[in-house]
Amino acid sequence: MMATDSDFTQRLAALAEAVEAELDRLLSDRAPAGEIVRPARLTGAMRYAAMAGGKRLRPFLLVESALACGGSEAAALTAGTALELVHCYSLVHDDLPAMDDDDMRRGRPTVHKAFDEATAILVGDALLTLAFDAMASDTVHPDAAVRIRLVTGLARASGVGGMAGGQALDLEAEGRHSPDGRPLQLDDADIRTLQAMKTGALLAFATEAGAIAAGATEDKRAALLAFGKALGAAFQIADDILDVEADATALGKATGKDAERGKATLVGRLGLDGAKAERDRLARVALEALAGFGPEADMLRAALRFTVERRH
Amino acid sequence: MMATDSDFTQRLAALAEAVEAELDRLLSDRAPAGEIVRPARLTGAMRYAAMAGGKRLRPFLLVESALACGGSEAAALTAGTALELVHCYSLVHDDLPAMDDDDMRRGRPTVHKAFDEATAILVGDALLTLAFDAMASDTVHPDAAVRIRLVTGLARASGVGGMAGGQALDLEAEGRHSPDGRPLQLDDADIRTLQAMKTGALLAFATEAGAIAAGATEDKRAALLAFGKALGAAFQIADDILDVEADATALGKATGKDAERGKATLVGRLGLDGAKAERDRLARVALEALAGFGPEADMLRAALRFTVERRH
Repeated sequence: MMATDSDFTQRLAALAEAVEAELDRLLSDRAPAGEIVRPARLTGAMRYAAMAGGKRLRPFLLVESALACGGSEAAALTAGTALELVHCYSLVHDDLPAMDDDDMRRGRPTVHKAFDEATAILVGDALLTLAFDAMASDTVHPDAAVRIRLVTGLARASGVGGMAGGQALDLEAEGRHSPDGRPLQLDDADIRTLQAMKTGALLAFATEAGAIAAGATEDKRAALLAFGKALGAAFQIADDILDVEADATALGKATGKDAERGKATLVGRLGLDGAKAERDRLARVALEALAGFGPEADMLRAALRFTVERRH
Repeated sequence: MMATDSDFTQRLAALAEAVEAELDRLLSDRAPAGEIVRPARLTGAMRYAAMAGGKRLRPFLLVESALACGGSEAAALTAGTALELVHCYSLVHDDLPAMDDDDMRRGRPTVHKAFDEATAILVGDALLTLAFDAMASDTVHPDAAVRIRLVTGLARASGVGGMAGGQALDLEAEGRHSPDGRPLQLDDADIRTLQAMKTGALLAFATEAGAIAAGATEDKRAALLAFGKALGAAFQIADDILDVEADATALGKATGKDAERGKATLVGRLGLDGAKAERDRLARVALEALAGFGPEADMLRAALRFTVERRH
């Protein structure tokens, strides 16, 4: 039996609550062995940044991928929370004045507005650092070799050849760093690479890491990685479509914030209908990647539907 | 036979060259498995930040601590380079306008001056991320459990309860973040804690990590940790003394840049003579921690002399 949208929504909410509890534990003001003191102001700002709600999609994907491979939820939850810490750090740094210069996120002042810029930089640094501490912890897996593999995978999905590199390419594409201040001209393949790095890498690693944490076969790991990659790409196109359509509804025009910023998107390259067709094609690719799984992957299938059809 | 200062200087230079080669390898523009593409501009900026020379004291301490415990130099070199990546990231972020706002470092424009602020933020993020990739790599140790211990130790020395937390306390102490803009009043113990976090944690972890990487006994690990802690504290006082004396020489007055910034130092609390006595006391503590080691720790003893007596 397929997971209904309501099953999915309930499961997503339940896991988000579990992630919140895990974040609460990791962001305790008590310093564990090997630390000296956790300064109250910085710890508070980290909690403000990380515990602001949100769908917790990355931990959800990791946990459900692990369960689809017969893994344990408790172990996958810590690994998933490590990914969430990386995601939260990236939002704090992306919001900085020198980056996207956003004052608000999820209806609250961004960290540099609620605190100050220096604190926001340190909050991001410390959340990223804590992510590796969490991923290395023995609750993730009894075998250190598995944890090392996850630590390496997290570093590669997040760093210069993954998320951070994608953000750098995005700033270049917006013309923020080209010598003449003009946006780089990106073709379809460039945009896909940029998005595969900026948002795709961590989403794809979420599903792959679930398989690794569960000790899945190489086939299942590859299948879940392929699923995560296609889902990540579909997610980004859906996001770009949303930007245009939300704006079209609100302002009666068909250009969104992305276009104003000179952001290169597949909507801009393929048109709205072309982008929707590409999003749906990617969703089919993602679904096919799960062909070897039975009902144990139904929550992942539901997450895919949610991703493609989301309205906010 | 004791290592002479010239032995030490030669050894420091030789290891710095080996670290440079290791950085060159880690900062290749070819993406390893698990990464997508390394963007040329970001990779170039990371190389600019990390390969700017420098003493490479942290890798030196890690390698020499490993050798003092019978470990291998090649393995310790990768672990030491991971620490150097963390050190380099911290300099890039500390130099940012929102932090210490420094335009020059080692005679060259800082990263945000040579490139731009957004790139400098991403350079720091990506160097920090790469440090964990390096520490997890199998060249560090064949046993994944040892690498996991090093990854966890690196995270704790660098994060909210270590280096990043120390930088946050330092900004608070300078009055950058207190509600009325006035410097916090710190007593001796507060200053020691701040310095143990900001500069001490990574130096102390360098010597401890050398012992861990070499598979040393628990006694030797504890001894090297104690050595690194005392050396780190002496290093910071020597630095603060240097700030006052360099300034006194240059400007004929006895207050340095630190005092202007309202930075809390033990020189400010104990006076110049008191600070020198404390520095020398800490050097004796460090030396005593090595009592159980023979000539195999002579390079560490020489590093201590260099640290305490340094003139620049």
